[in-house]
Amino acid sequence: MTSHETACILNAGDRDAKVEITIYFSDREPVGPYRLTVGARRTRHVRFNDLDDPRPIPLDTDYASIIRADVPIVVQHTRLDSRQAENALLSTMAFPA
Amino acid sequence: MTSHETACILNAGDRDAKVEITIYFSDREPVGPYRLTVGARRTRHVRFNDLDDPRPIPLDTDYASIIRADVPIVVQHTRLDSRQAENALLSTMAFPA
Amino acid sequence: MTSHETACILNAGDRDAKVEITIYFSDREPVGPYRLTVGARRTRHVRFNDLDDPRPIPLDTDYASIIRADVPIVVQHTRLDSRQAENALLSTMAFPA
Amino acid sequence: MTSHETACILNAGDRDAKVEITIYFSDREPVGPYRLTVGARRTRHVRFNDLDDPRPIPLDTDYASIIRADVPIVVQHTRLDSRQAENALLSTMAFPA
Repeated sequence: MTSHETACILNAGDRDAKVEITIYFSDREPVGPYRLTVGARRTRHVRFNDLDDPRPIPLDTDYASIIRADVPIVVQHTRLDSRQAENALLSTMAFPA
Repeated sequence: MTSHETACILNAGDRDAKVEITIYFSDREPVGPYRLTVGARRTRHVRFNDLDDPRPIPLDTDYASIIRADVPIVVQHTRLDSRQAENALLSTMAFPA
Repeated sequence: MTSHETACILNAGDRDAKVEITIYFSDREPVGPYRLTVGARRTRHVRFNDLDDPRPIPLDTDYASIIRADVPIVVQHTRLDSRQAENALLSTMAFPA
Repeated sequence: MTSHETACILNAGDRDAKVEITIYFSDREPVGPYRLTVGARRTRHVRFNDLDDPRPIPLDTDYASIIRADVPIVVQHTRLDSRQAENALLSTMAFPA
């Protein structure tokens, strides 16, 4: 019953990217932002289950996420949901906010 | 032979989103709009099989959907079609109409 | 060894859409355009294997497709390739050309 | 443990496309660009494992890629990762850089 959701973030630019992840729910206020840095010309793999500051993401509920950055980045999203045979890679651009 | 199509709608903004879903077919006029609200800073999971006002979506035919909202939202679409081993997550932006 | 590639085309507008599909290959000139109409407020499911005018698409080679229309349409692409366990739905917008 | 990542590049235009692929990592500087040409009105299938100039892509680490071209092209990305039952097709546009 565990959902393994990850995001692979690519910063192809020459400045470090300050990234903020906010998690939204159906029945409560969002949590976050979770803050992290992706170095210039680097990728970073984020497991949502590992996010714990300001607090862990509850595992018992659906959520959605918004990823913002102060420089353009590319985010590739993977959700492997053990509740159904569903697997997908999503690719999205995140723009400065 | 049942298609389980769902949409996860994220409203990351600070105003409630009025959402309208219209269903299109190959051989008849569209039905809808189905109206629902997604609260500010909330997600909402919609099962297309549960939509019944103005009337249930016929299960015996293919259809396509357009989702419109009065504020920007993010829609993640899942179709699990038992007729073939096909599963996908689609992510799209819906803009004010 | 057969590839089942289909496109579901949605014309949510109030004018019929004149659609042209062109097929591109790695080692020869493109074929097409294959022409079809999608009625106003209708969907149409196109199986690429059924396209035969100006000529059938060769089944023994990879190809890519471009779909053009004279009004905005939505195209959802499915490729079920029996050569590998690969399945995906792609959603793209086609704009007037 | 081998990742089979490929990109199918479509050049629907009437000029040859000069394409550059750069590979980014989490813990080292990017490698590339790998240069190739996609003829006018042609597709080209690229297996990332086959890229070897300036040097082969290390197989023991995650990476992300950016594809640039001097004319508009369409890139369809496939990653078949034997480490998990994950398969996806991504479609993206690459614009002149």
